[in-house]
Amino acid sequence: MTAENSSNADAPRRRGLPIWAGLVILLLVAAVIVLLGLLGTSIMERRWEAQRPALVLKPIAEWEPNSAVWGENYPREYQTYLRSRVTDTKTKYGGAYPRDYLDGDPLQVVLFAGYGFSKDYRQARGHPYAITDVSQTQRIKKPFMAATCWTCKSTDVPRVMARMGVKEFYGSNFHDLTKEITHPIGCQDCHDPGTMNLRITRPALKEAFAAMGRDIDTATHQEMRSLVCAQCHVEYYFKTDPAAGQKNYLTFPWQKGTSVEAMLEYYDRINFADWTHPISKTPIVKCQHPDWEMYGTGVHAYRDVSCADCHMPYRTEGGVKFTDHHVQGPLLNISNSCAVCHRWSEQEIRSRVESIQTKVRDAKLEAERAIVNAHFDVAASMQAGVADADLASARKLIRHAQFRWDYVSANNGMGFHSPQESMRILVDSVNQAQQARLLAARLLAAKGVTSEPAYPDISTRQKAWAVAQGFVDGQGAKLLATGE
Amino acid sequence: MTAENSSNADAPRRRGLPIWAGLVILLLVAAVIVLLGLLGTSIMERRWEAQRPALVLKPIAEWEPNSAVWGENYPREYQTYLRSRVTDTKTKYGGAYPRDYLDGDPLQVVLFAGYGFSKDYRQARGHPYAITDVSQTQRIKKPFMAATCWTCKSTDVPRVMARMGVKEFYGSNFHDLTKEITHPIGCQDCHDPGTMNLRITRPALKEAFAAMGRDIDTATHQEMRSLVCAQCHVEYYFKTDPAAGQKNYLTFPWQKGTSVEAMLEYYDRINFADWTHPISKTPIVKCQHPDWEMYGTGVHAYRDVSCADCHMPYRTEGGVKFTDHHVQGPLLNISNSCAVCHRWSEQEIRSRVESIQTKVRDAKLEAERAIVNAHFDVAASMQAGVADADLASARKLIRHAQFRWDYVSANNGMGFHSPQESMRILVDSVNQAQQARLLAARLLAAKGVTSEPAYPDISTRQKAWAVAQGFVDGQGAKLLATGE
Repeated sequence: MTAENSSNADAPRRRGLPIWAGLVILLLVAAVIVLLGLLGTSIMERRWEAQRPALVLKPIAEWEPNSAVWGENYPREYQTYLRSRVTDTKTKYGGAYPRDYLDGDPLQVVLFAGYGFSKDYRQARGHPYAITDVSQTQRIKKPFMAATCWTCKSTDVPRVMARMGVKEFYGSNFHDLTKEITHPIGCQDCHDPGTMNLRITRPALKEAFAAMGRDIDTATHQEMRSLVCAQCHVEYYFKTDPAAGQKNYLTFPWQKGTSVEAMLEYYDRINFADWTHPISKTPIVKCQHPDWEMYGTGVHAYRDVSCADCHMPYRTEGGVKFTDHHVQGPLLNISNSCAVCHRWSEQEIRSRVESIQTKVRDAKLEAERAIVNAHFDVAASMQAGVADADLASARKLIRHAQFRWDYVSANNGMGFHSPQESMRILVDSVNQAQQARLLAARLLAAKGVTSEPAYPDISTRQKAWAVAQGFVDGQGAKLLATGE
Repeated sequence: MTAENSSNADAPRRRGLPIWAGLVILLLVAAVIVLLGLLGTSIMERRWEAQRPALVLKPIAEWEPNSAVWGENYPREYQTYLRSRVTDTKTKYGGAYPRDYLDGDPLQVVLFAGYGFSKDYRQARGHPYAITDVSQTQRIKKPFMAATCWTCKSTDVPRVMARMGVKEFYGSNFHDLTKEITHPIGCQDCHDPGTMNLRITRPALKEAFAAMGRDIDTATHQEMRSLVCAQCHVEYYFKTDPAAGQKNYLTFPWQKGTSVEAMLEYYDRINFADWTHPISKTPIVKCQHPDWEMYGTGVHAYRDVSCADCHMPYRTEGGVKFTDHHVQGPLLNISNSCAVCHRWSEQEIRSRVESIQTKVRDAKLEAERAIVNAHFDVAASMQAGVADADLASARKLIRHAQFRWDYVSANNGMGFHSPQESMRILVDSVNQAQQARLLAARLLAAKGVTSEPAYPDISTRQKAWAVAQGFVDGQGAKLLATGE
């Protein structure tokens, strides 16, 4: 009982705390509250950064062409966009470094003989240079040049189009709009300034979808992350139809579909040609850069990976995730693009991509050699007196072979947008070019010429240019007889 | 104090439990112990099943040819092996259903004119049918047939080879060994009976590695899961070298490498041909099934995925993981093969694979048409009196084009072992075949013939056979003049 009594007697003393201990607890509680407050503020601040609350956003005009103005509201996107000005990146087959494709590949000088691309076929620099680059190309140095060429170069285009009317815009002279069109490709080309949603600002893509019986307005956000690119990175031509009041009207040849076969069917039906090749007198269609069409046949499109996923992958700065607006080849940014899905080392990814590209490059060169020789073979037949009517089949084969080759060649990425489709197209290209040569050889033989032409030396860009120009100047017979 | 006293007075009563409660606890504890024991036994049993302890394994003789004997120790593997007997599976371009490739593709009847494959080119059925199938093919119906043909058909081969000697085995007559060789491809071909480790049982693969300066004994286990297949699923030929005492010695043409170019270089250097094509008199090498060589250039090999990973994927039965020995096309077992890495729906995987295969099939047919026409064009030149010496270049192009085509065509999987490499090879094949035609057309023209030959009708297997046999019988001139 003593123990119990003693414990009972101590009890009241245990119920109190010394004053200093109470103060310590108070201070600790206060410190925790202050720290929690700081953490809360930090979280709110990041959230604020990510959400960019409306109270600090400056209003942006509907057709605001100046990306710097957009950049005040969206500094991360704008600052990465500005990085597209780099010109010193290089991969095995790509990169932003300045080059003329013709330097490394004289066969193309002959393939484009009599057309602007034979003179000057430069790698386009990044989007911020769009105005500068188009103003400097040799291909625009003529008094009338379709204003249609501006369509994909500037954020000023939608505003000017809205003012002038679409038909009137396309129908005017490039040089007449030089003063109004000054801002290169930028924010406004793909974004709605009110909501920042992606939007299609150019009529040609909408019209092409409508021609295929599709409604582009039903596209998902993920599809839009490719479709905004498809406003420009596609095959197109300038349609002139006086009955419809159309002159140089930007048109995508997709009515039958976007495959190379569907485009050829379209162009053949309307009998379209960009120019007549001076060597073989073949009506040729220059294929532009059907990046979106080619990509659509590949495994990345099949798996709903968009253009932006590889060329503008997400990145993080200060805890904020945003889209990198430095548009570039994925091989220059493997860790943020390829490696997000393909958990390999960068070296493994690069090596695999390059091996695929090398196979496409080799097949592409085979096609080039075959088509160039086909042009010469048909030229030799003409000089031997074969009638145009008899050469129609050979020329049609060349026309198709060259468009097929160009569909692959003009694509960015050396076939990587769809490696298997690129090779499929090149098989057909090579096959058709060689068939044209066979036809020409038989026609030549029927005129008593059984030897092959003295194929001119086109081993350098300079020699190839001299040959191409020689045919333009009517020296073809001499060239094929002597090779010089 | 009353309360305290009263509680103290109750204490002794609380310290005891009624006897019935003690018994319940005892029973519960006993039940838990029994249940734990049962669980432990169940776990041990499964482990025992998985590990198959040595005490119940029957010893297997070093060269035991009977897979049923191995199956007593390894029932799961053996039972799945037996499933390879199915012959009713079918995919778009493959499957185990019986067929003759020539039925659907009369061009091949002409490509193999004068050679056994022109008569009979059947889909091989599963491994358990190896003996039956080789005994039934039309191609062995001749008095002497190299015993080398047995090499890849039977588990009796290593034993017979060990007894006779390798050279002697290859050098003997197929028909003389019929009684000794009775067990089809099975366990012993790939496994060591003592350890069940994978092992190479056929000398040709070891010798081919040695010829490349590589030591197959340093291969990893994962490499072995492809290399055991490479004992047979490769390109090979029968080498006869009296100086070395070799007759029909099974040899893989890998000394320069395993690419199609390296093999052609090898065959050209030793001037090897399986037969001379009766239409164009071209010395042709029949390419067998270079599955392993082709696979080695593809992305699956690049990522260390083995043959077994796709064709014999792991499966689970009763909690035990084991290798499915029903060797089959992955499209017949998508969920266990492709989908282990590619987390897509089966339909998505199938559709993607088929789209790749269709492109290869189309390019393959283009190559076939070009090569068949090249044979006819050279035949027409010969009939017009062009000398053999002048036709050498055209024939070499045909030889190379046909070997390239066959390297892809004889591969299982319609190009899927390496889609891009398949297409690369077919581009070259088409190109070379058409170049041969061009040469032939010019030579023909020099003899005054400027029209194309009357290409005979080979639109059905029967018609193609009549044409092929017509050339064998010396009716070529008539066929090319009239087309019948």
